[in-house]
Amino acid sequence: MTKPYEELVGLDKLIHEPARLAIMTALSACDNADFTFLQQLTGLTKGNLSSHLAKLELGGLVTIEKRFVKKMPNTLISLTDKGSLAIEHHWQLLEKLRNGTKL
Amino acid sequence: MTKPYEELVGLDKLIHEPARLAIMTALSACDNADFTFLQQLTGLTKGNLSSHLAKLELGGLVTIEKRFVKKMPNTLISLTDKGSLAIEHHWQLLEKLRNGTKL
Repeated sequence: MTKPYEELVGLDKLIHEPARLAIMTALSACDNADFTFLQQLTGLTKGNLSSHLAKLELGGLVTIEKRFVKKMPNTLISLTDKGSLAIEHHWQLLEKLRNGTKL
Repeated sequence: MTKPYEELVGLDKLIHEPARLAIMTALSACDNADFTFLQQLTGLTKGNLSSHLAKLELGGLVTIEKRFVKKMPNTLISLTDKGSLAIEHHWQLLEKLRNGTKL
């Protein structure tokens, strides 16, 4: 028997932190997103968003690509394969817990 | 228009922390639970569970009642009305975010 409560206690805090859960969930809905879009979506400050993205990059969950678009600097963020699997698994655990108490 | 991502970034960390989310979710499924039951359910150590419950009590989300059952000390934990509303609201926010990306 699986134990959703025990599993939840062990949730990956790198992903579970509210801002990072929002970022990862947004990224899971699109191939990639630029920094400004993520900032508008989450309402985070530039510094806070950068800091969260750096942690996710360090964990191998996202890639951050700096480039120029029409001579303007632009930062493109994408989920890695690992990140994609991780956010899906995270939501499955949360849903399992939620549904477990609805029975 | 509601903004589920911004709302999520502002999620109440008192409840969102994995172990406390598990505790609050378990309590929302029953009127009350004793300490030992919660410990078995979550797999937390005595010290960790005590510490999480103390934080939830401080936030007014649970009540902790120490009593004797057949001369044995027993600790009964229940959600307060505030706690009950809070965990329900928390899951609604999470579900809103999750469903927002499924469209």
